[in-house]
Amino acid sequence: MSSFLDRLSAIRVVLVAPSHPGNIGSAARAMYTMGLDRLVLVNPRHFPHPEAVALASGATPVLDAARAVRTLDEALDGAVLAVGYSARPREFAGRVSPSREIALEAIAHAALGDVALVFGTEMFGLSNDELARCNVVATIPCNPAYGSLNLAAAVQVAAYDVRLAAGGGEVWHAPRFKPATVDEIEALYAHAKETLTAMRFLDPRMPKRLLPRLRRLFARATLEKEEVNILRGILARIDLLFRR
Amino acid sequence: MSSFLDRLSAIRVVLVAPSHPGNIGSAARAMYTMGLDRLVLVNPRHFPHPEAVALASGATPVLDAARAVRTLDEALDGAVLAVGYSARPREFAGRVSPSREIALEAIAHAALGDVALVFGTEMFGLSNDELARCNVVATIPCNPAYGSLNLAAAVQVAAYDVRLAAGGGEVWHAPRFKPATVDEIEALYAHAKETLTAMRFLDPRMPKRLLPRLRRLFARATLEKEEVNILRGILARIDLLFRR
Repeated sequence: MSSFLDRLSAIRVVLVAPSHPGNIGSAARAMYTMGLDRLVLVNPRHFPHPEAVALASGATPVLDAARAVRTLDEALDGAVLAVGYSARPREFAGRVSPSREIALEAIAHAALGDVALVFGTEMFGLSNDELARCNVVATIPCNPAYGSLNLAAAVQVAAYDVRLAAGGGEVWHAPRFKPATVDEIEALYAHAKETLTAMRFLDPRMPKRLLPRLRRLFARATLEKEEVNILRGILARIDLLFRR
Repeated sequence: MSSFLDRLSAIRVVLVAPSHPGNIGSAARAMYTMGLDRLVLVNPRHFPHPEAVALASGATPVLDAARAVRTLDEALDGAVLAVGYSARPREFAGRVSPSREIALEAIAHAALGDVALVFGTEMFGLSNDELARCNVVATIPCNPAYGSLNLAAAVQVAAYDVRLAAGGGEVWHAPRFKPATVDEIEALYAHAKETLTAMRFLDPRMPKRLLPRLRRLFARATLEKEEVNILRGILARIDLLFRR
């Protein structure tokens, strides 16, 4: 079983005939944010180019390692799966599925060999001939009235789906402190009941819904030990005031 | 139960203090591709601006309807949920979850009222004070060595997750033709067996794995009526040749 990073390293992004070097840079940046670093350019109009470097905004390792080739066949050489990204592949004979589903297939294949994610030109996308060289077509769901994702945006979404499919969805989490135990929390409620009664805020003969509401609130928050201590400190302070 | 489009129309995108008008345009384009069209700008440095229009690339309805306000509080007015997008919200006291999970919550809340998706400045993201005004924080998983999503890329991913969470994941599918029935397919295999035997390509006493392999191939393709007719036409043509 290969690791999540091994899977991502089996994936190459192929841009067919990109016209604007800035778009190559933006695409490099987009893929690199998701941990993809293998870029293949088929007949780029301008490459290398300073505008690509500018738009890559630090994702230069991707540009430095990028290969430029003459044909899509060269770009796909050795790949066990070629996924074409297309908004409306009318003439494609094979299967068309949403990007998120195909990302799972791409990652499954990445355990077996190289996988190519293939994107067409900025203006026209992939031609029918180019799509015919792909095993499956991925479509990014979008607003039917305005489906104009730019090249880097499409690469961003595709790479994001692939990263999450590979299990790379970990994000930073706030540190968790020591949770309070059930008995500590029950002691807090008992204390609160006493104090609120002493304050004459709660009438024990007609308690209404006050304590259940407090329980509900604190249950949602999943109290920490330190927080129980703080709340009991406040109650104890009130107790002192009322005993004077 | 409100529809998927109702849910999306309850969602506003809030950009806090964007510096570059081009980024406002790119963000407008990104959100509009996913069907979000309510943009609120908190203290934009330049707005309106021709560069925003240029980068919006046709998503001008979003810019035309965009509101510029002075404070984040104004931008959040009336929202039942404010989601802050942040890469590493160290000081945020509340819950931090991946964008894809929070998208589900955002859509659930969108049935109850307005939901705000809040993005910080290009350079620094959301400040601690701004994050404190959000109910939850969403994080987009990314390459720990290079997490530099630009503003429009973050909006693109967030809007994509929200659209899919709302059930807007429908994509264009190739038209399906009339599938062949089981008996038509079995008749095809019977025909193929006869013809291949007559051709002496198949020895019925030693059939090996030929027919099972053909069955497997065609089963994967899920044959259509017209395709069965074509294949039987080819077989019939061969039959004629062998009968001469």
